Amino acid sequence: MMSCLRSVAYLRVWIIMLSLSRNFCGMGGVTVAKEGCMFLEFAPAVGPRQYDWSKKKIIALSVVEVGTLLSLGPDESCEFTHDPFMGKSEAGKIMKVLKVGNLQDTGGYFFNLSVTDRIADVDESFSIPITKGEFSVMQSIFNFILPYLMGWHAYMDSTKLNESGHFKSGGPSIAKRPDLEWGR
Amino acid sequence: MMSCLRSVAYLRVWIIMLSLSRNFCGMGGVTVAKEGCMFLEFAPAVGPRQYDWSKKKIIALSVVEVGTLLSLGPDESCEFTHDPFMGKSEAGKIMKVLKVGNLQDTGGYFFNLSVTDRIADVDESFSIPITKGEFSVMQSIFNFILPYLMGWHAYMDSTKLNESGHFKSGGPSIAKRPDLEWGR
Amino acid sequence: MMSCLRSVAYLRVWIIMLSLSRNFCGMGGVTVAKEGCMFLEFAPAVGPRQYDWSKKKIIALSVVEVGTLLSLGPDESCEFTHDPFMGKSEAGKIMKVLKVGNLQDTGGYFFNLSVTDRIADVDESFSIPITKGEFSVMQSIFNFILPYLMGWHAYMDSTKLNESGHFKSGGPSIAKRPDLEWGR
Amino acid sequence: MMSCLRSVAYLRVWIIMLSLSRNFCGMGGVTVAKEGCMFLEFAPAVGPRQYDWSKKKIIALSVVEVGTLLSLGPDESCEFTHDPFMGKSEAGKIMKVLKVGNLQDTGGYFFNLSVTDRIADVDESFSIPITKGEFSVMQSIFNFILPYLMGWHAYMDSTKLNESGHFKSGGPSIAKRPDLEWGR
Repeated sequence: MMSCLRSVAYLRVWIIMLSLSRNFCGMGGVTVAKEGCMFLEFAPAVGPRQYDWSKKKIIALSVVEVGTLLSLGPDESCEFTHDPFMGKSEAGKIMKVLKVGNLQDTGGYFFNLSVTDRIADVDESFSIPITKGEFSVMQSIFNFILPYLMGWHAYMDSTKLNESGHFKSGGPSIAKRPDLEWGR
Repeated sequence: MMSCLRSVAYLRVWIIMLSLSRNFCGMGGVTVAKEGCMFLEFAPAVGPRQYDWSKKKIIALSVVEVGTLLSLGPDESCEFTHDPFMGKSEAGKIMKVLKVGNLQDTGGYFFNLSVTDRIADVDESFSIPITKGEFSVMQSIFNFILPYLMGWHAYMDSTKLNESGHFKSGGPSIAKRPDLEWGR
Repeated sequence: MMSCLRSVAYLRVWIIMLSLSRNFCGMGGVTVAKEGCMFLEFAPAVGPRQYDWSKKKIIALSVVEVGTLLSLGPDESCEFTHDPFMGKSEAGKIMKVLKVGNLQDTGGYFFNLSVTDRIADVDESFSIPITKGEFSVMQSIFNFILPYLMGWHAYMDSTKLNESGHFKSGGPSIAKRPDLEWGR
Repeated sequence: MMSCLRSVAYLRVWIIMLSLSRNFCGMGGVTVAKEGCMFLEFAPAVGPRQYDWSKKKIIALSVVEVGTLLSLGPDESCEFTHDPFMGKSEAGKIMKVLKVGNLQDTGGYFFNLSVTDRIADVDESFSIPITKGEFSVMQSIFNFILPYLMGWHAYMDSTKLNESGHFKSGGPSIAKRPDLEWGR
């Protein structure tokens, strides 16, 4: 978890890890049932270092959105629009827009989240300035976490050297298929 | 595994891990019998979010080709030509060409795979646009996976601190060889 | 630990890891009681390769300060001011200022630490030149260590595939909350 | 291990890991008795894909030299001079010089090793061109390996969450020392 406290709001970064199961026979016997995601959680300030967590808003960034933030250049900005009910009857009733861009003077970044909730009849928006050092920490975490969110670590664990001292990935069926080119 | 679904085709990225054995006495007692590789698997679209997996084509990128993609600059492109039967009697009958370059307007990339198969008398080509965020995720995975594809992780595991609290790599034979410079 | 010996002074880089406990129920059952930090320890030279460790001074960089050094561009500098007694009655009695910037000619960096201690009535300052290669090693370590200082590794460990072959992070309460967007 | 085969010579990259012991009480009870290093091993070609390993020459790069290669910019070069007998009576009898720089046209790099051995009365030099993709793989490995060569992984392992669910690094003696700033 990473926290950025500001006079106007609080930004907390955390993740939900992926969901794995073991019934797949291609990638080391491990399959990803559902990729993980990165949560950005915003809460408004109600006083010095006091935040109203009952009014917090959350946006869940996908792996590709995390990759977009990871590759964000110093003069670039990006915007993600989410509809939590997309494809359901309540579609469009809640819209979340996250904008991230750089602050010209300081080398830092701003994180803006706008949430329009027509069910609860609430419009809320947060704008949090992030220092260059904080953004660097975020990018370091994003780079560390991405392979885990996608399950590559589980696959890696399945390739540890076994006790007999031999490990063979894929097995004979793969070695015999020239279209896979691995037998070269 | 990483998947990019497009209206024209599907691109799936996965790997075959390396093959290890334990009968080597230089690198922590572990040797790499065969390096792993990175698979790019393309399938053509036959309808909205429907793909014909019977027509899928696979190209297996070597460690150095993965390194080339990892270091691909924003204005650069690269091309890999593979012959799965290289050095065999069927040489030249199947040719695979992968081109990767950047899309001027969006900051994204294209992945083009052409497969000429004179055995099955099939010519197939795929062209998939990849967003900048997706390419960033790929590069993050490539950087994470490269040491594993080459077996460095197995060597690292062999250097865990043992229970007696001492670990000495290489042993006395190495310490006594001044040409290795390690005894300095 | 990393050491840079110079004719004028000694710089040693090490860390105190974070403090963890297991009584939290959001991030994989692990919470960070206190983040770790990165120590820069300076000792003055009293002769060739001899340093007076009784006069050593330490500055403890926070995660965000480490991130600032990690993202320091070739023409940039940064400065951190610390008061170890901040918020206590002795506030202001000890002030530590670390400045890091680049050396024009060599591509290297300088690390300056000034400590004003009104309790012991001592003013001490250190200035150590760091080569470009040493700074590159530091940045490699900083990038490696940051997720550990913040506890992300403990969270990752808690998501290892269990023996029944299934892992589900968060549990049903999370899947049923559309505002978390994970059920999409 | 990483191998680059060329028509003129062979370059093999491998490492000797560090030497650890457990009798230190600052960094998680682990100390580095001797840092690891990165070996570059050159052998001359004597025919197509045949190399004379009896004439191989090795240079052992220190952690900081590896860091220098890691941060080598596209228009930069570097040079390391080693004397395996430095400080001994045979000093100067064997000199090894490694030069690394970029090849203007291809974006690749050259690795030149010259060894002057007055004991065996041998002068040998190797020059191997490395592609941009290969150098990218090397840098990926260098970045992966650096923390291990310096022992940071052993320290990280010592901070795994213990079974009682609590971990406290440093202990009470550290928390009570305000000069360490960790009690803030």
